[in-house]
Amino acid sequence: MDPLDVIGNLHNVKPVYQPIISAIRQDVKGHEVLGRYHDGEAWQSLRSFFMHPDVPEEFKVEVDQHLLTVALEKVMAEGVGGLLFINRSAKELMVNDGEDLLDTLLEFEEKGFDLSRIVIEVREHDFDEDFEALNHLLLYYKTFGIMIAVDHVGAKSSNIDRIRQLEPHILKVDTMHIRNHDSQGFQDIMYSLSMLANRIGAAMLFETIEDDYQLYFAWKHGGRYYQGFYLAEPSFEFATKDSLRVDAVEKVNQYIRREKALVERRLRFVLSWEQRLKERVLKWEGPKKVDQYLERLTSEFNEESFRMFICDADGIQVSSNFRKRQEEWEPEYNKKGSNWAFRPYFLENVMQMKTWNKGLLSDIYSDIETKELIRTFSFPLTDQYFLFIDLNYSYIYENEFLLM
Amino acid sequence: MDPLDVIGNLHNVKPVYQPIISAIRQDVKGHEVLGRYHDGEAWQSLRSFFMHPDVPEEFKVEVDQHLLTVALEKVMAEGVGGLLFINRSAKELMVNDGEDLLDTLLEFEEKGFDLSRIVIEVREHDFDEDFEALNHLLLYYKTFGIMIAVDHVGAKSSNIDRIRQLEPHILKVDTMHIRNHDSQGFQDIMYSLSMLANRIGAAMLFETIEDDYQLYFAWKHGGRYYQGFYLAEPSFEFATKDSLRVDAVEKVNQYIRREKALVERRLRFVLSWEQRLKERVLKWEGPKKVDQYLERLTSEFNEESFRMFICDADGIQVSSNFRKRQEEWEPEYNKKGSNWAFRPYFLENVMQMKTWNKGLLSDIYSDIETKELIRTFSFPLTDQYFLFIDLNYSYIYENEFLLM
Repeated sequence: MDPLDVIGNLHNVKPVYQPIISAIRQDVKGHEVLGRYHDGEAWQSLRSFFMHPDVPEEFKVEVDQHLLTVALEKVMAEGVGGLLFINRSAKELMVNDGEDLLDTLLEFEEKGFDLSRIVIEVREHDFDEDFEALNHLLLYYKTFGIMIAVDHVGAKSSNIDRIRQLEPHILKVDTMHIRNHDSQGFQDIMYSLSMLANRIGAAMLFETIEDDYQLYFAWKHGGRYYQGFYLAEPSFEFATKDSLRVDAVEKVNQYIRREKALVERRLRFVLSWEQRLKERVLKWEGPKKVDQYLERLTSEFNEESFRMFICDADGIQVSSNFRKRQEEWEPEYNKKGSNWAFRPYFLENVMQMKTWNKGLLSDIYSDIETKELIRTFSFPLTDQYFLFIDLNYSYIYENEFLLM
Repeated sequence: MDPLDVIGNLHNVKPVYQPIISAIRQDVKGHEVLGRYHDGEAWQSLRSFFMHPDVPEEFKVEVDQHLLTVALEKVMAEGVGGLLFINRSAKELMVNDGEDLLDTLLEFEEKGFDLSRIVIEVREHDFDEDFEALNHLLLYYKTFGIMIAVDHVGAKSSNIDRIRQLEPHILKVDTMHIRNHDSQGFQDIMYSLSMLANRIGAAMLFETIEDDYQLYFAWKHGGRYYQGFYLAEPSFEFATKDSLRVDAVEKVNQYIRREKALVERRLRFVLSWEQRLKERVLKWEGPKKVDQYLERLTSEFNEESFRMFICDADGIQVSSNFRKRQEEWEPEYNKKGSNWAFRPYFLENVMQMKTWNKGLLSDIYSDIETKELIRTFSFPLTDQYFLFIDLNYSYIYENEFLLM
């Protein structure tokens, strides 16, 4: 596609709209505006035009301005609600200090269009260019109520410090990475990103969703918005809840049922382990005989655990580690006296166990020693001493409710 | 400092050792090896030598090899235990495929030095050069038991995807950022990083700790290791627990007491709010009169809250939002029917409330609408309906135990 053909035939350039679905309403929350060019035979994507480094930025701005104007006119003519996501590269935004975009938007604001419906998508790695200048421009846009989304989060360039500084409204995650990456790695990243999003008050949008598993993954990882062929292709017309390829309401209901079943299994697991332990706790003989006590317990959890130890309410390990190696439980005496209170939530969990006299199952995490995914079950032996049972990966793997 | 002087006078180049303190034992876990050069008058840091882009990499490798050899000889001669942290830039590692370093290490392994005591520190933004080649080299080093630390995490280039791919044993965080950055931003980043570290099984090491607040910050954010002038300066001799500037045992005990007091205040808060609500719940009149019920409750939490709503066990909001604006509580009818089950831990928390009939206080997070830091108190009205009370920032700010 010759860039000059595109720029010389703007009447052959038209926007298409891909809907973005909200987890909250399972309805169309808005549309992303993308470009199409009719080359005389068929409609072609303008992706290569926008991505090509040799196409002058001024050309791209002109085409983007055309697409935006047509889209806004259509939105207003049809009285369509919701958000409008538009893409701008850092370089495009820096042409003429980004005034062209703002001028167009302000023109439509005068006609009654609410600028808080606009979301500008920027790519985070674009910010290598001139972070301060761009950040400044985006801050300026924000003063008009315009929202900012950071695109391609979770890809090569997930710089959490810069994401934090931009204070975007939306983090847009490319779900493609579930297929391309090693899946465990992507889950670790998604977990960290969803925690970051939670802390900074940003919503997560998962794009390029192409099948049910990816939609479930997005929902399960705190995705508030969804986009992709699985839901709807880009179209010259705006989407409605009824035009979607899947019944989003039914999908979310399925996920809720599935998640509730998993949570319930974990809850029953905690209750049954509490019961097992309450039957054993009778034999607790105080901290002086702690290693003997623990050694007796190991045989009870031979299948499920690979490490057990006992701490006091200050996080000090009062027992040896009991560590299973080649089917044998061995005491590691030198771990006695370790202090684990620095670990996130450790003291909070101990206090909870003490107060409610209940066991706790940790989230899934990687053991620092074995690097394997594990969970820890903890239980108050008394109001001063707490038992920690590290579940081994094979046991977790065999029980889906522990893995998810 | 003329690089030729340094390289021509290696007998004037000596390593210094800065201790790294463990949270677990509050003892010296190991030392970082740094370089000093005697210019005829005084000992100078070799930082500028190593950082200068014009100094040939081969020079740097030669000086680093000299420092390492002297350090290893001293460690073995004195029978000092613990880890040895050494710095290598990506460029240095790529000289001669990193074989010089490995040869030296293997030579000492033959003399009885355990290579699992070596930690190679690499800077994550160094990886811009040639990520795949470096990652490959580090994987090779790992096969010898050598550990990898990623330095300067939390700085401009905290690329979580690359950090994840490297699977380092240690994430080294520069505590300087507590001073330089906006502190809230740094806390958000530290929180996300500590969650990432937990997921990938990496330990957090906080360096450049210069005062008590920074040490507390490091401890509170899951820091397993600490380093900095506040604990000890680099010295020609190895440090011991007794040579540290502060009593690390007493420090950690202080932090534990402080944290326990905060946790206890939060627990008492939950208990007292549960009590307040149990007195009100008697008047619950079922889901049909939910808005009237909620409206009466708003006056009870006028000081503490800015938003209240009620959901069912599937996450569906069955009430309007009640939202405080300019001292008046207003219903937002259009929020009814929202589904919040996609939010991380939502269904888990609902199930817990239902099972134990207890209220829950969330962690601190940023509200997506107001961008202010808030917490949410949730409470089971029945086993089907759950009340959510969002605490406003000023109330949280006035109560330190809610802020921390």
